[in-house]
Amino acid sequence: MISKKMQAQVQSSSIIRAMFEEGKRLAGIHGAENVFDFSIGNPSVEAPDEVKKAIVDIVNSEDAMSIHGYMNNSGYEDVREAIAKSINKKFGTAFNHKNILMTVGAAGGLNVVFKTLLNPGDEVVVFAPFFGEYRAYADNFDGKLVIVSPNTVDFQPNLEEFKGKITPNTKAVIVNSPNNPTGVIYSEETIVKLAKILEEKQKEFGTDIYIISDEPYRELAYDNAQVPYLTKYYANTIVGYSYSKSLSLPGERIGYLVIPSEVADFENVVAAANIANRILGFVNAPSLIQKVIARCLDAEVDVEAYNKNRELLYNNLSSYGYECIKPEGAFYLFVKAPIEDDKEFCAKAKDKNILLVPGSAFGCPGYVRIAYCVAYKTIERALPSFKALIDELK
Amino acid sequence: MISKKMQAQVQSSSIIRAMFEEGKRLAGIHGAENVFDFSIGNPSVEAPDEVKKAIVDIVNSEDAMSIHGYMNNSGYEDVREAIAKSINKKFGTAFNHKNILMTVGAAGGLNVVFKTLLNPGDEVVVFAPFFGEYRAYADNFDGKLVIVSPNTVDFQPNLEEFKGKITPNTKAVIVNSPNNPTGVIYSEETIVKLAKILEEKQKEFGTDIYIISDEPYRELAYDNAQVPYLTKYYANTIVGYSYSKSLSLPGERIGYLVIPSEVADFENVVAAANIANRILGFVNAPSLIQKVIARCLDAEVDVEAYNKNRELLYNNLSSYGYECIKPEGAFYLFVKAPIEDDKEFCAKAKDKNILLVPGSAFGCPGYVRIAYCVAYKTIERALPSFKALIDELK
Repeated sequence: MISKKMQAQVQSSSIIRAMFEEGKRLAGIHGAENVFDFSIGNPSVEAPDEVKKAIVDIVNSEDAMSIHGYMNNSGYEDVREAIAKSINKKFGTAFNHKNILMTVGAAGGLNVVFKTLLNPGDEVVVFAPFFGEYRAYADNFDGKLVIVSPNTVDFQPNLEEFKGKITPNTKAVIVNSPNNPTGVIYSEETIVKLAKILEEKQKEFGTDIYIISDEPYRELAYDNAQVPYLTKYYANTIVGYSYSKSLSLPGERIGYLVIPSEVADFENVVAAANIANRILGFVNAPSLIQKVIARCLDAEVDVEAYNKNRELLYNNLSSYGYECIKPEGAFYLFVKAPIEDDKEFCAKAKDKNILLVPGSAFGCPGYVRIAYCVAYKTIERALPSFKALIDELK
Repeated sequence: MISKKMQAQVQSSSIIRAMFEEGKRLAGIHGAENVFDFSIGNPSVEAPDEVKKAIVDIVNSEDAMSIHGYMNNSGYEDVREAIAKSINKKFGTAFNHKNILMTVGAAGGLNVVFKTLLNPGDEVVVFAPFFGEYRAYADNFDGKLVIVSPNTVDFQPNLEEFKGKITPNTKAVIVNSPNNPTGVIYSEETIVKLAKILEEKQKEFGTDIYIISDEPYRELAYDNAQVPYLTKYYANTIVGYSYSKSLSLPGERIGYLVIPSEVADFENVVAAANIANRILGFVNAPSLIQKVIARCLDAEVDVEAYNKNRELLYNNLSSYGYECIKPEGAFYLFVKAPIEDDKEFCAKAKDKNILLVPGSAFGCPGYVRIAYCVAYKTIERALPSFKALIDELK
C-alpha cells in the first residue's frame, strides 16, 4: 500500500495522465502533425552549439575522476565562482561561490529551500495563477500553501490581498517572474511595494520572511523587458534558477540557488541547504553538466524563435476574439476561456485536436494556458482550429 | 531561521565537517601525500573508456532536443528496456521497461521509494552496521528507523532479533549487500531465512512489508562471490541501484529502481514512484547520462584494483593484530577498534594523519570503517602508521 499523501497524488495526477493518453490516441487517429499539443513547457529551441562543444572539450581534456567524481555537495567551487561572477556582471551584485549552491534544476532547488526552512504548518504564500507543483513541493515538508487570488486585469500580484494574508506563520513567499502561466513580468514598482510590505510584516511579527524567487524564465524576456533582480530589493531573498529554458537543457537537471550573505541566519541556511541537497537524495547537481555550464555562461538559446511564436499566436488569437494579456516573457499565453468553465473549454479544444491546460491547474479557473514552445508551423496549422473553436462558441 | 529538523542535522553534521577541515589542516602542515584519508567512499578507479566514447558518440550523432529534453519522469523507455534486458540476462529475471524507473543515483531512488511508501510513524528496519544516511532518508518522510543490533561474529544480519522487531507498523526492511561499512555479502542462506520471516510476518499482521535492496556495490564482489538477486527470493522487493561505483560515476547521479510486477499494489507503486520522482524535484534522471548508461551496460571498472587494495590492507592490518572480517565486496574494511571507544581511536589515528570513520556513525560502536578506494601507494605509505598506532595501544 502506498502512502496516503501519494494516494491523493496518484488520484489527481491520473487526470493529466488520461489527457496525455488522449493526445497519443488522437495522434494515432489523425496523425501527429494534426494534433496540436500546447500543453507542455518543453523548450522547442535547441541548446546552443556551445553546449555540445563544451561537452566534447571537457571529456577530451579532463580526466574521468575529476569529471564524474564526487565534489562538495554544493557543487564545484570553480563553477560556483564563475556563476557568481556572471550574475555580478549582469546585475551589479557582489556574490561569490559561497552564495551559490548547484542544484538538480529549479525543482530540486525549491525542494532544498523548503526542506531548509519549513516546519510543519509553516505558510508559503503564492500569487495565483501559479505553477501547480509549488503545492506539492510545500506539501513534501508539510508546509501550507496560502494563495493570493489572481488580479486578472494585468496579472501583477494582488498586493492588497497579499498584505492581509501574511501571518506570524508566513515563512516564505514565492515570486515567479517571468511568470508561468501568464508570461507576465512583475514590474519594478510591484517588487518595491512587495518588499516594503514584507519589511513591515517582518517588523510587526518579529519574524523572518523569505522571498523565494523562482526564475527559470529570466532570460526569456521580449522587447528588451527588464526583469528586476530581487536580491537588490529585499535582503531575505533566495533565488532558484534553472538552465532548463535558458540553455534548453531541461532533461539534464541543472540549476542553482543564490543564497545572499544578507539573508537572515545566512550561515545556518547555507549549511542546512548543503545538507538538504545531500539527504534529499540529490547529493549534488550532475557533475559533467556543472562543468559544461561554467563554459556556457554567455551562451543563449534563440529567444527570437519564441518571440516569433508569441507574436503569431497572440496577434491571431486576439483578432479571433480571444482575450489575453500580451506576455512579456516565458513561453506561455494565458487566455480567458470564451466559456465560463475552463475544463469544458479544454475538452472542446481537444475535440479540435488542440491540447491546452485549464487555468484551474494554476489556481485561476476561467482561463487556459497555451504553451507556445512548439514549432512555428504547428501554430500556423493550429490557427484555423483556434478560430473555428471560438466562432462555434460565440 | 532554519527548520527544526535541519537544526538537528546542522548540529550533528558539523562534527564531520570539522573532521574534514582537520584533514585539510593536516594536509597543509604535512603535505597531502602524508595525510591518509580513508574516510570517504569516493571511487578511486576511473570510469571505463566506454563512458567517454559513448558521451562523444551521442552528442555527435543525436540532436540536442532528444539528448537534453524532457522525457517521461521514469526515464527514456529504450534505456529502461535495455537495462531490464541486461538484468534479465544476468539474473534470469523477466523485467521490462515498466519495471524500471531511472533515478538520480541510489540516494534519489531510496527517497523516491520512501516518499512512495511511508506514512508518518511507519517503521523501516535496518541491520546495524548500516549506512547512516538511511536515518535521514526515512526521517524526510517521518518514517521511524528500527535498528537490529549488529552480529559482530560475521556481520550477517541478526535474524532472531529481526523477527522480534517486526510489527504491524513495519513498512520496509533495507538490505544493503555487499554492505557498507562491512564489505560483507549477505549469504543466500541469510536471504532465504529473511524472506521466510517476512512472508510469515506479512501473513501474521495482514500487511505488506517491502524489502528495499540498496545495492550500489553489487558489481564490487571479490573471489567470484555471488550476490543473490533479491527479487527472486521475495516478491515484495524493490531494488535501488546506482552506477556510482560500478561505472565510477558518483558525481553524475545516475541509477534506477526495479519495481517488479509481483510487488504488492504494483500499479499504484509505479504510478506513485513516478510522481514522487517528479515532485521531490528530481523530475527525471539526468538525460545525457541515461543514454550513456544504455551504451555501457557491459562495461566494467577495474575491480581488480580494489581487490589488490583489499588484500594489501587486510593482510597487513591482520598481521599487525587488528581484528577484522575479510570483506567479500564493496571497498570498506570494518575493523575492531583496539580500544573500546571508536571515536577516541579515530582521534588517535588522526594524530598519525590517518582519517577513519567511527563505527558509531553506522550504529556499531567499537569499530571503525576504512574506505580503501584510494591509490595503492596511499595504503603502502599508510601501513607503517597503522602498525605504530596499534603497537602504541597494546
